[in-house]
Amino acid sequence: MHILITGAAGMIGRKLTEALVARGTVRGQAITALTLVDVVPPVLPDGIPGAALSADLADPAAAPALIESRPDVIFHLAAIVSGEAEADLPKGYAVNLHGTIGLCEAIAAQEGYCPRFVFTSSIAVFGAPLPDVIPDDQPTRPLTSYGTQKAMGELLISDLSRRGVLDGIALRLPTICIRPGKPNAAASGFYSSILREPLTGQEAVLPVPETTRHWFASPRAAVGFLLHAAEMDLSQLGPDRALSLPGVDATVGEEIAALERAAGPAATRLIRREGDETVAGIVAGWPQAFDPVRARALGFEAEPDMDAIIRAHIEDELGGRIPVAEDGAD
Amino acid sequence: MHILITGAAGMIGRKLTEALVARGTVRGQAITALTLVDVVPPVLPDGIPGAALSADLADPAAAPALIESRPDVIFHLAAIVSGEAEADLPKGYAVNLHGTIGLCEAIAAQEGYCPRFVFTSSIAVFGAPLPDVIPDDQPTRPLTSYGTQKAMGELLISDLSRRGVLDGIALRLPTICIRPGKPNAAASGFYSSILREPLTGQEAVLPVPETTRHWFASPRAAVGFLLHAAEMDLSQLGPDRALSLPGVDATVGEEIAALERAAGPAATRLIRREGDETVAGIVAGWPQAFDPVRARALGFEAEPDMDAIIRAHIEDELGGRIPVAEDGAD
Repeated sequence: MHILITGAAGMIGRKLTEALVARGTVRGQAITALTLVDVVPPVLPDGIPGAALSADLADPAAAPALIESRPDVIFHLAAIVSGEAEADLPKGYAVNLHGTIGLCEAIAAQEGYCPRFVFTSSIAVFGAPLPDVIPDDQPTRPLTSYGTQKAMGELLISDLSRRGVLDGIALRLPTICIRPGKPNAAASGFYSSILREPLTGQEAVLPVPETTRHWFASPRAAVGFLLHAAEMDLSQLGPDRALSLPGVDATVGEEIAALERAAGPAATRLIRREGDETVAGIVAGWPQAFDPVRARALGFEAEPDMDAIIRAHIEDELGGRIPVAEDGAD
Repeated sequence: MHILITGAAGMIGRKLTEALVARGTVRGQAITALTLVDVVPPVLPDGIPGAALSADLADPAAAPALIESRPDVIFHLAAIVSGEAEADLPKGYAVNLHGTIGLCEAIAAQEGYCPRFVFTSSIAVFGAPLPDVIPDDQPTRPLTSYGTQKAMGELLISDLSRRGVLDGIALRLPTICIRPGKPNAAASGFYSSILREPLTGQEAVLPVPETTRHWFASPRAAVGFLLHAAEMDLSQLGPDRALSLPGVDATVGEEIAALERAAGPAATRLIRREGDETVAGIVAGWPQAFDPVRARALGFEAEPDMDAIIRAHIEDELGGRIPVAEDGAD
């Protein structure tokens, strides 16, 4: 079983690599080779045969070179993120659209080859006006170039799956929370930072009202979605291979309440309210909640609530400790 | 005012060219140049400055060469039709997807240029299961490669219009009826031929039950849609630049009844019922009717009924005469 991961140096790519190495098998077969690729060279785990490659999917030669060895399972995570795809129109289209088309066409060019193809789409395929709870049959009307590129990829993967070129699925990941690492410039960054920073005793800024509702899953759940997508019988999806995934809908106020249950007022008092109308305006157009009936019926599982999302972060990123609570006990 | 038409040698392309020459202006400005392009060289009408070019949009060099002269209005009609896009997967993607992307990217590469871009999409962006009457917010879930390529084009045009690269619109044309010319191999061909052949005293074969319902507009209405799309203020559409258009929904039985009203039983007795389960199976998955509220509000107009569709054919293709009725009077 040869596995290819594009975007392998990213946060989800690294966690997916770890999880694959830990389990050692996919679909009951031993993982015999792992090809990791990203624009910065990913780190190949010890003792696993394979390759860690630096390649840019905006280069038309990249996809054929990656597909030549006919990997059995392809996790296509590589993407220019939302903000950058909006700021740099040609770059976003080069990687997010042409990169995906290039992989698909390189697969189509191989005779008698039909790999499992797991593509990370996004809830950004949906744009306002949106219902409070988005059903599975919501039309994809993106309002960003990133969402457009992902929606185009979804269509391509459904068609090529129907045509037998690949056996594909497009996963519309919820906003990942709690995203580990440093605060970043993404408009959605505060959803994670108002939990992540206070847990370690750092201050965080909240730029929107506490009533703002959004849709979340942990990094652990995201890796679980990808593994389930690689394992399951995709013919169950029928011709539409794009799927809105389970998650937790929570207001910022509910996030803060869950933080207080986990780490006490020593944590929540580190959240500084500093309204930012630009950020509030951007997130006002985002999906608030989904009713992902299809994905749940197909066995995709997320955390039940924000408490579980915080618990996953404490276990996976903080070694089971809550620094701010320990400081408070000093 | 410089106008570019791709697919100009096709039936709609030729009728659009005629209509543009007849009116002489677009958006109140005189047409000063007409560039007609197709894989077979189109015919440039007498007395109009411009060029008739042979070019294949599957060739990546074609689009930049066409866009270099910065036409003010682009009618992008060129496409591999549904049956061929299904039979030849690479060819369909090369023309219908890469050809459209190539034009858009050539436009984006020109500084300070934002042409009107009128793209012919298709009701094939919708696939079964479908409601009896399709609303404007129906999700695009194509079940053919052609429909997929058109749906991807729609997304691209909406995004690039939002980004100010072009001022675009994607028109989901109804099935054109009565299509002039010879019977062809398209699965939808009988919808036209059961009217067209009997009007001139020829026999036609009906392969489906008379209860089969479908969605039609005349060639004259299709040209009207294209001209209206070139003239109107597209900002009225908002961010979703794809539009299901008005048409006439009619069963085969209603088509035949209208034929009898126009040309009498001498025409309708030329229809030979010869059931074809393959054709019946294909058309069973097609849209039956639409409720195109947006397009009607934006001033797009089709015929009111099948009688008017037949009348348009008699006027535009038969010089106002009904050969079968004249034969009958002999």
